[in-house]
Amino acid sequence: MTDDIRIPEFSSELTEKIQHKLDNKAKPVGSLGRLESLALQAGLIQNTLSPELKKPVMLTIAADHGITAEGVSPCPVEITWQQVLNFLDGGGGIGLLSRIYGMDLWVVDAGVNYTFAPHPKLIDAKVARGSENFRHQPAMSMENCLKAFNNGRRIVRDFAAKGTNVVGFGEMGIGNTTPASALMSVICGLPVEECVGPGAGLNSEGVRNKAKVIQEAIGKHGISSSPYENLARFGGCEIATIAGGMIEAACQRMIILVDGFITTSAALVAQSINPDMLNYCVFSHESDEQGHRKMLQFMKAKAVLKLGLRLGEGTGAAIAYSVLKGAVAVLSEMTSFEDAQVTNTSHIRMEERVLP
Amino acid sequence: MTDDIRIPEFSSELTEKIQHKLDNKAKPVGSLGRLESLALQAGLIQNTLSPELKKPVMLTIAADHGITAEGVSPCPVEITWQQVLNFLDGGGGIGLLSRIYGMDLWVVDAGVNYTFAPHPKLIDAKVARGSENFRHQPAMSMENCLKAFNNGRRIVRDFAAKGTNVVGFGEMGIGNTTPASALMSVICGLPVEECVGPGAGLNSEGVRNKAKVIQEAIGKHGISSSPYENLARFGGCEIATIAGGMIEAACQRMIILVDGFITTSAALVAQSINPDMLNYCVFSHESDEQGHRKMLQFMKAKAVLKLGLRLGEGTGAAIAYSVLKGAVAVLSEMTSFEDAQVTNTSHIRMEERVLP
Repeated sequence: MTDDIRIPEFSSELTEKIQHKLDNKAKPVGSLGRLESLALQAGLIQNTLSPELKKPVMLTIAADHGITAEGVSPCPVEITWQQVLNFLDGGGGIGLLSRIYGMDLWVVDAGVNYTFAPHPKLIDAKVARGSENFRHQPAMSMENCLKAFNNGRRIVRDFAAKGTNVVGFGEMGIGNTTPASALMSVICGLPVEECVGPGAGLNSEGVRNKAKVIQEAIGKHGISSSPYENLARFGGCEIATIAGGMIEAACQRMIILVDGFITTSAALVAQSINPDMLNYCVFSHESDEQGHRKMLQFMKAKAVLKLGLRLGEGTGAAIAYSVLKGAVAVLSEMTSFEDAQVTNTSHIRMEERVLP
Repeated sequence: MTDDIRIPEFSSELTEKIQHKLDNKAKPVGSLGRLESLALQAGLIQNTLSPELKKPVMLTIAADHGITAEGVSPCPVEITWQQVLNFLDGGGGIGLLSRIYGMDLWVVDAGVNYTFAPHPKLIDAKVARGSENFRHQPAMSMENCLKAFNNGRRIVRDFAAKGTNVVGFGEMGIGNTTPASALMSVICGLPVEECVGPGAGLNSEGVRNKAKVIQEAIGKHGISSSPYENLARFGGCEIATIAGGMIEAACQRMIILVDGFITTSAALVAQSINPDMLNYCVFSHESDEQGHRKMLQFMKAKAVLKLGLRLGEGTGAAIAYSVLKGAVAVLSEMTSFEDAQVTNTSHIRMEERVLP
């Protein structure tokens, strides 16, 4: 069921060619910094010297969480379904920012405790009306976990078939920083205390309780050597669907825009299944949720933006998409020294360390 | 000539109203981080609860520098005029990125050592064919310095009259990190060694020479208590024009997008003339040129982006404009809890410090 994961390797020959093309753009070598490394990555992902962003899609994947019974979120659980409707109506952070930055927003019901009327931008991929309370039992049965994972794969495969080559992942789910922190602790091997934070606004006592709940759950279920087992024990329906979506996106040579803390926990799961998927990830931003920085460090990832965001939904990914647009244009459209009839300075290289 | 600088103060009553509006958007309070602080700033600048970005203009202001005779740049000086033509043709970093991010690019000849044919997007504001070599004499006569400064004011006033309310500043001028470093040292009171860096790619020896040249120039001309005097002694035609443009933009209640190291040195000059202009500045990015971080610290400014850019031209400002678009939309367009029929959680506030 999950043994058909084939993620293309990058061409080292192309790496050199792209670098040469970037170095001959009419500017000092390397002076566009992160835009150049993103451009290189986009070229390698698309296996071309002239990458393009086609039919960009934002998938905001929603689910509810049984663990909220343990008081791990200060927000009422009905906000999950309310926000799904709000996003579909073009509202909320991601309804707004996907529009502003030109991404086609789709909302995925991976496991919301609500019956939605059909809507042209809502994808029904509900595997349950929320995960179980993983303090007491696994968050998902293995069957539901794999169902959610494969739903993610199928959804992304369908977009790829329609020509999408860049996909942002975001999420909505009251309580979902708790499974994200649990997965982080389990996968990164970090103490729970380093993995928890205030989420939508827990106070110190609330954060301590969250840590305690996660600690107990890990004690109860144990840590598995199987990524899918860990996902089933400590994850959530949206996290499983996102993880599957990311794996498929890498198989399809799509650029993956990873949003904040929860989406990054799905990337942690996905890379524990197949680490090659990381080549396809653009980590959009470093969120203000304290664990996020350490998740990124664990994957040796450097976020594009650091804007103090802690909203999720895909909002940071939508902003980073805008930076990616510039990066791709640098490689595909920017004039070279030759085009521009500007004296070539590509022989001038920065020293590794230049100080007076 | 320069005593007509009247920069509007912000309304503290409006600050509260904007904050209240932001807090009632359908999201956890403060969770859009820097987008919210930018939104607040935009609202205060435009004196409204619903800011809009109108006719965004990028001014890339170019000039040559006599100080290049001292070997302070690894690049040949003809690149200044070559790049002006390249930008006008839609090429180079800023020709590309202003187009990608939707800013109307104008190139200003503030003092390039070249005679340009007229071009619809080239503004002729040439005060000289480059500055003098300030190791030996002031970079500009006071007359030329004020002429350049007032050219900047006039250009920006004309755009304001045509409805532009957001203006990015960038520059092109081989050798111009040297005047920028000199102004930084003089205005921030920092040792020259902390103000110099490799620019377009000087090696260590070159950076040491650059520091020595600046040190000698400061020794020769001394530091004045007049911002205009310091600008004339150590600046450049584009830096003076940008400083004037920024001052006028603040007078006109325009949002100012400040680009990298050289443009920020112009902001240093402008704030030494009238510190209220800082309220109108969005510092786009922290560049890789080592002094930039310290310039920003001196003005208590926090850059929006940190992308390892060291190109100038306005490229960082163009990318930051894209973030600003999102920020303004958050305040003006994002749904509130009430609009969205989402349970109001605006009473949930983050503690200053929440750790387990």
